Amino acid sequence: MEHKIDARPHVVILGGGFGGMNAASSLRHAPVRITLVDKHNHHLFQPLLYQVATAALNPSDIAYPIRRIFRNQRNVTPILAEAKQVLPEAKKVILVDGELSYDFLIVATGATHSYFGHDEWQRYAPGLKNIEDARAIRSRMLRAFEYAERETDPAKAQDWLNFVIVGGGPTGVELAGAFIEIARHTLSEDFRHIDPRKARVVLLEGTDRILQTFSPATSKKAEEQLRALGVEVRTKTRVTGIDGEGIWVGQDRIRARNVIWAAGVAASPLGRSLGVSLDKAGRVPVLPDLTISGHPEIFVIGDLAAFTQDGETVPGVAPVAIQEGKQVAQNIRRRLDGESYKPFRYFDKGMMATIGRAAAVAEIGKLRLSGFIAWMAWLFIHILYLIGFRNRLIVLFDWAWVYFTYERGARLITGDDEAQESVEKIS
Amino acid sequence: MEHKIDARPHVVILGGGFGGMNAASSLRHAPVRITLVDKHNHHLFQPLLYQVATAALNPSDIAYPIRRIFRNQRNVTPILAEAKQVLPEAKKVILVDGELSYDFLIVATGATHSYFGHDEWQRYAPGLKNIEDARAIRSRMLRAFEYAERETDPAKAQDWLNFVIVGGGPTGVELAGAFIEIARHTLSEDFRHIDPRKARVVLLEGTDRILQTFSPATSKKAEEQLRALGVEVRTKTRVTGIDGEGIWVGQDRIRARNVIWAAGVAASPLGRSLGVSLDKAGRVPVLPDLTISGHPEIFVIGDLAAFTQDGETVPGVAPVAIQEGKQVAQNIRRRLDGESYKPFRYFDKGMMATIGRAAAVAEIGKLRLSGFIAWMAWLFIHILYLIGFRNRLIVLFDWAWVYFTYERGARLITGDDEAQESVEKIS
Repeated sequence: MEHKIDARPHVVILGGGFGGMNAASSLRHAPVRITLVDKHNHHLFQPLLYQVATAALNPSDIAYPIRRIFRNQRNVTPILAEAKQVLPEAKKVILVDGELSYDFLIVATGATHSYFGHDEWQRYAPGLKNIEDARAIRSRMLRAFEYAERETDPAKAQDWLNFVIVGGGPTGVELAGAFIEIARHTLSEDFRHIDPRKARVVLLEGTDRILQTFSPATSKKAEEQLRALGVEVRTKTRVTGIDGEGIWVGQDRIRARNVIWAAGVAASPLGRSLGVSLDKAGRVPVLPDLTISGHPEIFVIGDLAAFTQDGETVPGVAPVAIQEGKQVAQNIRRRLDGESYKPFRYFDKGMMATIGRAAAVAEIGKLRLSGFIAWMAWLFIHILYLIGFRNRLIVLFDWAWVYFTYERGARLITGDDEAQESVEKIS
Repeated sequence: MEHKIDARPHVVILGGGFGGMNAASSLRHAPVRITLVDKHNHHLFQPLLYQVATAALNPSDIAYPIRRIFRNQRNVTPILAEAKQVLPEAKKVILVDGELSYDFLIVATGATHSYFGHDEWQRYAPGLKNIEDARAIRSRMLRAFEYAERETDPAKAQDWLNFVIVGGGPTGVELAGAFIEIARHTLSEDFRHIDPRKARVVLLEGTDRILQTFSPATSKKAEEQLRALGVEVRTKTRVTGIDGEGIWVGQDRIRARNVIWAAGVAASPLGRSLGVSLDKAGRVPVLPDLTISGHPEIFVIGDLAAFTQDGETVPGVAPVAIQEGKQVAQNIRRRLDGESYKPFRYFDKGMMATIGRAAAVAEIGKLRLSGFIAWMAWLFIHILYLIGFRNRLIVLFDWAWVYFTYERGARLITGDDEAQESVEKIS
């Protein structure tokens, strides 16, 4: 198809996460043409990704086609492509298979895992950032029980039943709570030789408390709830080694065939090409209007941006990205109307984290909730923000199903087994 | 775990498809211990697999954990393992990672694709046998539209929009009907540069009619319905070559970037180790009681077996496998009671195939149905046989959703792109 010339200013958005999607949809009535670039064809509702990894939800419940979202917003052209580099002086983005010129650029490519310089740990301790990661963790977790079942040496079988989660942020806490429920309820009757209830789930945190972004009182509540479910929580514990049989904490060994990495976060490498110096986590320091120094046409938002407010960097969470995306759209509209940019200000509506079945914590302004009521609030908010009527219905149904039956609908092992080991012969 | 000695006769079942599952569950009250071996952890409801490949259903809607099915049948031990070879004289099965001794063996490992000696076609024309295949076809089909969108040469864009399905059996017919609906309805408004309605779907069949196992009148009806949907049907057309840009039929070229293989079926290679000579399709000829010559303790059932009744080999369909599985279980129980085996007889309850939205054909005894009423019958039967209350509900919901909205819930592109090609630069 020959692509027609269009005189409207060209806004290129890199990344279809919360930031990029909100920027694009807030430009709905603006006299611009938008190209939205993502290497996936779907927007991912990342706060529920751990539920795919733990077999409660299907990938498509939390992933929605970007094209479908913008079907009726005709000034958006989504393309499936990967951005390699930005050339700020030439006002161009280099893709793996092409290039794009822009008038305004919004960089919203997010973050990935960081193994703090130990990339060799990745093989043994996968992280959770996209659908493929979630499926891989799900298969690995389910396979571990299968291997334990076929192992004739009880000590080796126990190694397969030991789960270590590195990192006590929301993802780590959520995974720990879900794994213990799977072992103690979902799978408890399904094996003949092992008792899945003997699975150990250990949550490790380097600092002095889990859920660092919450208040100390809330962290304590969360830890109590985790312990009540059966999770072993160890704070002030820094991992010094990971291999195929477990982890090292200094001279201490925790044997475990299942290690999940929920610790370090590093901003997407695209930030490096912007020509500004990055912070320790690889994030791009932005000005109050979310642009970068010297380039009022380049905005950086979401987990990739380091935005400072009241002396602190705002956290890498969905509400920040959403608000930033909307603000950038507003500023582009202002600029086209001949007005100047307005500075961004993050409005903190609160934070919440689930811990497990009927257990969660939430901080909304001065209000602190925990337990069942916090969990209900969590369910409600997440359903509300989930895109697409169908997805909301299906997720609601799946949650009710898991809650009342302890069954998990997506107990599938697929793909190759990268951790395959010879299992002793049985007869 | 040390595995205890058990004096009951050991029944080993290889394969958790329709045959193996029904044999195991029909031995519920028999004084035997059963080991059920499958290389997947789930039973797959294969008749609906094409709906995963066409984004209408999620993998977990049609795949159900084998352990969950046998949770309460304590004489079954499911293991996740792959059988490599049978040693009939030693009464042993060699697994990739171990071995099993048996008193009775039921081989039900099914069939796979056959490229009629052209294994090099597999790369360009994937087949559909398991969840991974379905996901790969789904991603490939959705990616084709993305590449077409980014292609600036109209002829090359059309190549991405051309779909060829090789093989006019039920799978080929179902895929063709679903692809045309996706192009003409589901995606019709989602692109900016291409019109997905320009997609061509070509169904090729080597013999003189599609749906060979049905009556000629029904084949004709099915062909009419396909044409009415917009599918090009070509019979008496044998593919002579497949490459990255299309297929050859003798000197004729059909350019197409999407080729799906729904033609040849070859029995699982495990049959070769049984020491009997196989038929042309690699199937194991079985005696009237479904055992193999000289080994009354070895049964072969399902797609792997060639069972002759009234001078014809019964077809490789789910009802045959189900009935065979039940019969074998009955014969094992008879043998344990000191009685002799009863011969198997297939009771043909009828056949059906969907063609697309509100279109299907069915033959039940002398009754021949087509169109909407056949489609309703098809929906009803498939929901009825689907294992698990949850799966039935979800599938029913998904079907109603697709029917009323034309949306498909599982439009996800995941995994690597094996067919990636450089796409020309856009600006």
